[in-house]
Amino acid sequence: MSKLRCHITISLDGFVAGANQSEENPLGEGGEVNESARIFEESRENIGAAVMGRNMFGPVHGGAWGDEQWTGWWGDNPPYHYPVFILTHHPRDPVEMEGGTTFHFVTDGIESALEQARKAAGGKDVMLWGGANVAQQYLAAGLLDELELHIVPVLLGDGARLFHNLGDAKVQLEQVRAVEAPGVTHLKYRTVT
Amino acid sequence: MSKLRCHITISLDGFVAGANQSEENPLGEGGEVNESARIFEESRENIGAAVMGRNMFGPVHGGAWGDEQWTGWWGDNPPYHYPVFILTHHPRDPVEMEGGTTFHFVTDGIESALEQARKAAGGKDVMLWGGANVAQQYLAAGLLDELELHIVPVLLGDGARLFHNLGDAKVQLEQVRAVEAPGVTHLKYRTVT
Repeated sequence: MSKLRCHITISLDGFVAGANQSEENPLGEGGEVNESARIFEESRENIGAAVMGRNMFGPVHGGAWGDEQWTGWWGDNPPYHYPVFILTHHPRDPVEMEGGTTFHFVTDGIESALEQARKAAGGKDVMLWGGANVAQQYLAAGLLDELELHIVPVLLGDGARLFHNLGDAKVQLEQVRAVEAPGVTHLKYRTVT
Repeated sequence: MSKLRCHITISLDGFVAGANQSEENPLGEGGEVNESARIFEESRENIGAAVMGRNMFGPVHGGAWGDEQWTGWWGDNPPYHYPVFILTHHPRDPVEMEGGTTFHFVTDGIESALEQARKAAGGKDVMLWGGANVAQQYLAAGLLDELELHIVPVLLGDGARLFHNLGDAKVQLEQVRAVEAPGVTHLKYRTVT
């Protein structure tokens, strides 16, 4: 079955370290290439579409989309190469980029975004790109299937926590594996329903 | 050199899961015997003394020590078999138990407790038994050398956080290793000064 998967780098004190995270540098600055490279490669396998929060797509600045020409941080050929469904309150026509990435803008909520992404994925999995707030919503709604945390030995002291705002949701996780790599540990969990 | 070492079980959302933790059941309820047994054995090696917070030693109830006869949760023969220095505001004479455990009560702060424990350890390491508040104080003071976190896939949603109350302390940690075991991952860090 098509799964909803999420990879998030968090500090040892539990804050989402998303700021410098990217497809090219999935662990944020300081990420090393080694056992982590295998994990990273694996994270890209069997993904047919993605869901992304509005803040990961672009900066928030005045007006509905601020700049209607904004097409993400990633240049003309974003590293996704699949349809990406962006959660937003502001309708916008899809934007087709080079290399197979199309940005779709979803205004009717997380379930709709997942449904559309699943359909577009054609049987493959859907990647949830975050950020923290969006991951929280999918976790709380019981829609996330797999969560891989990249734990870096940094204390951020402040920021967004992945496991906040879960309300009364009874989220149950099961450890799938732990992989040690220099400067980071990759912890994979699946949700139990 | 004699190190100050600390083992703490924390939930995936970062709360100290100390309630059901004990020497016999170091991972709290649900802890399994396997790779974790090796980690547990290792944690007991080369320890010559310990420091412990007052709340780990006994229940807080009216009066200085409530019950002056209180000698801990562990019966006549506690599982330590070395001197244990308990941080408290209430002076009390040392209590010698069976099996080599002696409880000393330290009223002049964490540095004094560590100094006394180090001296008693005779070159071996000192175990910091927690709880969270005491661990925070040693972390913030830059006195902790080694921290091993046992991360269990549970969301507690509330409780004490190990990495709170660090004030302006610049705590730097380095990942030493990660060990996967059923239902838990053991993450070992050392502090960098």
